[in-house]
Amino acid sequence: MKIEVVTIGDELLLGYTVDTNAAHLARTLAAEGVEIERRTTCGDTAESIATAVRDALDRTGAVITTGGLGPTSDDLTKPSIAALFGRTMVLDEEHLAWMQERWRARFQRAMPESNRQQAMLPSGARKLVNNHGSAPGIWLEDDRGRWVAMLPGVPREMRGMLSDTLLPLVRERAGTGGRVVRSRTLRTTGIGESHIADLVATIDGGVGDVGLAYLPNADGTDLRLTVRDVAPSDADARLAAAADRLRTVVADAMYGEDGADLADVVLALCRRHAITVGVAESCTGGMLGARLTAVPGSSDIVRGGVIAYDDAVKQSLLGVSPDQIREHGAVSEPVVRAMASGIRAALGVGAALAITGIAGPDGGSADKPVGTVWIALDLGGDVQARRFAMVGDRAEIRHRSAQAALEMLRRRLLDGVRVAR
Amino acid sequence: MKIEVVTIGDELLLGYTVDTNAAHLARTLAAEGVEIERRTTCGDTAESIATAVRDALDRTGAVITTGGLGPTSDDLTKPSIAALFGRTMVLDEEHLAWMQERWRARFQRAMPESNRQQAMLPSGARKLVNNHGSAPGIWLEDDRGRWVAMLPGVPREMRGMLSDTLLPLVRERAGTGGRVVRSRTLRTTGIGESHIADLVATIDGGVGDVGLAYLPNADGTDLRLTVRDVAPSDADARLAAAADRLRTVVADAMYGEDGADLADVVLALCRRHAITVGVAESCTGGMLGARLTAVPGSSDIVRGGVIAYDDAVKQSLLGVSPDQIREHGAVSEPVVRAMASGIRAALGVGAALAITGIAGPDGGSADKPVGTVWIALDLGGDVQARRFAMVGDRAEIRHRSAQAALEMLRRRLLDGVRVAR
Repeated sequence: MKIEVVTIGDELLLGYTVDTNAAHLARTLAAEGVEIERRTTCGDTAESIATAVRDALDRTGAVITTGGLGPTSDDLTKPSIAALFGRTMVLDEEHLAWMQERWRARFQRAMPESNRQQAMLPSGARKLVNNHGSAPGIWLEDDRGRWVAMLPGVPREMRGMLSDTLLPLVRERAGTGGRVVRSRTLRTTGIGESHIADLVATIDGGVGDVGLAYLPNADGTDLRLTVRDVAPSDADARLAAAADRLRTVVADAMYGEDGADLADVVLALCRRHAITVGVAESCTGGMLGARLTAVPGSSDIVRGGVIAYDDAVKQSLLGVSPDQIREHGAVSEPVVRAMASGIRAALGVGAALAITGIAGPDGGSADKPVGTVWIALDLGGDVQARRFAMVGDRAEIRHRSAQAALEMLRRRLLDGVRVAR
Repeated sequence: MKIEVVTIGDELLLGYTVDTNAAHLARTLAAEGVEIERRTTCGDTAESIATAVRDALDRTGAVITTGGLGPTSDDLTKPSIAALFGRTMVLDEEHLAWMQERWRARFQRAMPESNRQQAMLPSGARKLVNNHGSAPGIWLEDDRGRWVAMLPGVPREMRGMLSDTLLPLVRERAGTGGRVVRSRTLRTTGIGESHIADLVATIDGGVGDVGLAYLPNADGTDLRLTVRDVAPSDADARLAAAADRLRTVVADAMYGEDGADLADVVLALCRRHAITVGVAESCTGGMLGARLTAVPGSSDIVRGGVIAYDDAVKQSLLGVSPDQIREHGAVSEPVVRAMASGIRAALGVGAALAITGIAGPDGGSADKPVGTVWIALDLGGDVQARRFAMVGDRAEIRHRSAQAALEMLRRRLLDGVRVAR
């Protein structure tokens, strides 16, 4: 089964919103063996919606749309697509009553009039339950079995409706005969795309007939293996064989698979070694702490840290000496080592990570250009420090710095440690 | 002039990468009066690339593609599109020599063989200079004036090439006769989409004939006004009139326009009042600090902070009393007030923001469900605190918490203050 996705909204087409729904839809459907053949984004006019959906229907007969179901005036999805199916719009009294009740219960006031049009549905439509909002999704199907499913644009609502209601309907119609598309992604960091490609070229027979894509990003380089139109049992075996081949060359640079987050991987390693963690951040200003605490359940490992953006804070809360800063500068090996040891002592943690650097756009010099970042790890009193030359803009330099700090701790823990908690 | 954009890559179609390039292209072109009519995303097969680009060319005669120009094996964009124009692929000796020289200079070693194919170009192609990477962009045009511009997929390279090289070419051909599409976005926070819609409904004549879109997101609700196919002078006047009307109803809930970042707005206000800032973060774990320090030049205002994820850190570095935590819990008004006052004293800042809450997914109770967040502001000793019930998942709750803290400081500074630095 091939599906096309049409994401609707001037905000997407004009670039004011990045289309995260499309990525989520694709991942979820691919895991079901349903392939998205093409994705189209069109604006909020009745004509462009109708044209894009009609083209997609003609190609595949199976279309999922997102967006345009909200209460406000830019919402034309339902009537445009109803017209394609030759349906009129009718008021769904049941849904209107439900919405009015919901408003009274949640907000203790009458529902705004502008929400009323959410209860207008194409005749003969099937409602898709929305457990996270007030706009129902719509399923329209004609007598030839061609269908369009309309989902809301708000990501939380779209995701809930997809898993709760739409996937079972799609599965019924998919009849993929058990054939699936499956991917595995090996995540690497600290090693470049070209370098990996050269290493892969040394594998006798490469990764076989499995597709391999290189996906460089601010976390590192992801290696995605894909098999298409195969039986599930074959898929896993073929992906596993290809992953094994890749691992022989990328080795320790690989920190996880698929959606793996380096912070999550590091926390699991810390848990295994019963090591608590603290951070001292200058140029990253809290990003490393934010990365670590973004992981649910991180509170058994992460104690906290100090954002020492100003040099005075490096002195007062981390015990860095004014002499070190004056002599070597705030972005230097002695200072980053003192920051790491300072936060380890202040919090009483097993592992302390410190970052100080020049994220730009200003503040660089010939000696220490923008992108110069020192990172230190104090693990039970054993301190290591490394200088990095990060590429990219301010946001990328900061992101790469937090990632490199996490990687320093991961590599150190991989080597095997025995330290006091 | 209408342009279609085709973004190429299995990683986009399968949802492993979110398409940020598309948004950047759209914003940049719209500012030039060039409208993107439709955007298509297709996979990394020669056939799907050729089909999508041919369809787009047939509709508009002007297509920009991103992706598929890298050194690795998944790159089929150039040959697929060359075939559409009836061109063969030829080795560009000049570009090959430049690439080899660049590798020697930057990495002190020979260029990997896998990069060689980046120097294969369609015959008759015009190279688009890449100042941020080694793959050139390609411009192909036929004798009927139909063209395709191929840009790399790496965002930094794509953005550089677009502004350095492609925009002038597009401008030459656009001949928009001075007609433009222009937007203004009013950013609001702390007020819901439906509520704003009701307020807008009270404006006599609404916002005139200007398009209005409601864009709810984790920062708040953005209100985008758009005029199409108008002269630049008219565009600005009409947008200004509509913005004035909107402002009469949204009032102080609006913190800025277009790409405005609340952290940036708050820093500017602090600068005006000569107030330094510090943060104390529990559930956000550094996100508020990261937001503030993401702004270039924030170091004159932001001193730093403490990530007090663990209650022991709230006590040792912020001076919260164990009794307060035992009696009221870590997520409570007394504790958040003590955190704010503690960090203000520790750093000697003018304004201190503190956040403590339950981001979930676990840790909620009937009294304090997931999403319960206390935020406090200590401004020169005057402390205010507020309880919030944030919706969304862990990431959204944390993001909304940081945003609400910034908004608390903005509102307080709007009221007018006179405090010691």
